[in-house]
Amino acid sequence: MSAPLPSERAFIPFVSVENMMRLVHHIGIETVLIELTDAIEADFRRWDLFDKTPRVASHSHDGVIELMPTSDGAVYSFKYVNGHPKNMAQGLQTVTAFGLLAEVSTGYPVLLTEMTLLTALRTAATSAMAAKHLAPANSRRLTLIGNGAQAEFQALAMKAVLGIEEVRLYDIDPRATEKTVRNLARTGLRLVPCTSAQAAIEGADIITTCTADKQFATILTDNMVGAGVHINAIGGDCPGKTELHRDILLRSDTFVEYPPQTRIEGEIQQMGADYPVTELWQVVSGRAPGRSSDGQITLFDSVGFAIEDFSALRYVREKLAGTDYFQKLDIIADPDDPRDLFGMLLRAA
Amino acid sequence: MSAPLPSERAFIPFVSVENMMRLVHHIGIETVLIELTDAIEADFRRWDLFDKTPRVASHSHDGVIELMPTSDGAVYSFKYVNGHPKNMAQGLQTVTAFGLLAEVSTGYPVLLTEMTLLTALRTAATSAMAAKHLAPANSRRLTLIGNGAQAEFQALAMKAVLGIEEVRLYDIDPRATEKTVRNLARTGLRLVPCTSAQAAIEGADIITTCTADKQFATILTDNMVGAGVHINAIGGDCPGKTELHRDILLRSDTFVEYPPQTRIEGEIQQMGADYPVTELWQVVSGRAPGRSSDGQITLFDSVGFAIEDFSALRYVREKLAGTDYFQKLDIIADPDDPRDLFGMLLRAA
Repeated sequence: MSAPLPSERAFIPFVSVENMMRLVHHIGIETVLIELTDAIEADFRRWDLFDKTPRVASHSHDGVIELMPTSDGAVYSFKYVNGHPKNMAQGLQTVTAFGLLAEVSTGYPVLLTEMTLLTALRTAATSAMAAKHLAPANSRRLTLIGNGAQAEFQALAMKAVLGIEEVRLYDIDPRATEKTVRNLARTGLRLVPCTSAQAAIEGADIITTCTADKQFATILTDNMVGAGVHINAIGGDCPGKTELHRDILLRSDTFVEYPPQTRIEGEIQQMGADYPVTELWQVVSGRAPGRSSDGQITLFDSVGFAIEDFSALRYVREKLAGTDYFQKLDIIADPDDPRDLFGMLLRAA
Repeated sequence: MSAPLPSERAFIPFVSVENMMRLVHHIGIETVLIELTDAIEADFRRWDLFDKTPRVASHSHDGVIELMPTSDGAVYSFKYVNGHPKNMAQGLQTVTAFGLLAEVSTGYPVLLTEMTLLTALRTAATSAMAAKHLAPANSRRLTLIGNGAQAEFQALAMKAVLGIEEVRLYDIDPRATEKTVRNLARTGLRLVPCTSAQAAIEGADIITTCTADKQFATILTDNMVGAGVHINAIGGDCPGKTELHRDILLRSDTFVEYPPQTRIEGEIQQMGADYPVTELWQVVSGRAPGRSSDGQITLFDSVGFAIEDFSALRYVREKLAGTDYFQKLDIIADPDDPRDLFGMLLRAA
């Protein structure tokens, strides 16, 4: 290779899975969850500034592949993410993801990173942000139904941001619950594995459902849900996939990220187009009330939205400064004379 | 780091700019252009199989960032590409790109690659494929108006695929023409730099316009275009950006990639929604006629479509086999137990 070295602009920082884990431990998992919650909340407060579009989904028999772009006018982000419930049986992740930040003024990428871990962190942080505004005051008891890859992140975010002390756990597969209990053993949380969903939700202030089946399921029925609880429904996140019986929705005040996406993908796909929802950003920015009475059932019908990924990507970019938790990737062809792309190719011969 | 090594599935092959250049020279530039033309043509023949959607564009004052996804049911692809005409003044590329292939059945990525060079190659190959079906028989003379980053690729593809012998060149900036002449000096093409568009199109069988201004421009006016010519318009590729006077469109038979996208982005954005077009895939697969008379003016109103990128990405993946023109990138978090993402993070502490 006699080609001249590419310019600095040709290289973009790449955060591998290994480096993401190093970065998270460097900061501390709970600190990351608290700071991500703040970062997402700050972006929800300037919601109007963002270009918003429902994610672009490619559905197949086995799952879905989605692209989730957004921009605040200065920075552009997108995430690639898949959802394949059957993957687990092959020893593969149900959800994997990576993402990118770019400069709007030039279109040049400025960060490429793994986002499987980062998505788990930002999803938990988003749940915590919603619960801050919607859960009963002084919530101390969390129920986790579905103890898969997202479970520990949810528990720790609710502990770090809300002060949750007890986590009650249920999964149709007891090994999933055992795994979650093992992983959370040293966190200071009081862990109560349960043998039924009914037992798990006893006395809960917050009920989080995060199951993965790609179908209409009924993880919670109406009679299971008492007055005053906050439900954080994060597993129903694509067309044909829900977790709650519709009667629960009829008794709840429902909060969503971006209605055009949630009406297609969320729990509310079971309801008519006129089913009332409140946009979470309006609560966060003080334009709409969150919880308004002790007996109210609040439901965060969460499907995940591009702005949360934007916040997480910007957070990672800030935290990378001054560290070596990234590689530089030669992904942008950057000839000295921008019109001379072919000349650059010729000179590499 | 005491974490166990990630599994093979966690690593995906990444083709850097340097490795793409090595791969192209290993195969030979003209061979790549011929084989890419064949690959794109093969996919155009099975057009019906693909998931098709107009690209997802994020427009800003200075340019556009686009995501271009497609899938044939077995393989999914997308490209990230920007278009920023003002970049050149800062010494940056107008267009940069990268792309990805993934397995539809699992959603796992299987290839990540630079696509700035690959887009230049596939755009030229697509032009050559269209010209095979639309240009006058025995075309020998090509005019290139706009001698920027795409010019040499166009010239070589038309030589390799159609047997073009003479290339007439014009650009508003004579240095761009000089650069193109210099780069094509050893290709065996007869090169004729011209001082006006009018002079450049004299005697042309094929006229290719590839200018970059983001505005309604008139690179060709009606009186400049004689009977029987094939016009390959590739510079007008976003809303508000065109190159041809509309009177030319009124005299031409116009062929396009994907009408829902071209009506927004192509030359035909100047015409009504009922302006007749023929889809190029129908010509390629024998369902619609291409050129039908000597006097006919044919126009390929090319904006670039996701299936062309799909073909190019699959081509690169095939050609990588048995070479070392790639790195392995740790971009997919892949714990031993797929539900134990958090445990993987803990063990990395």
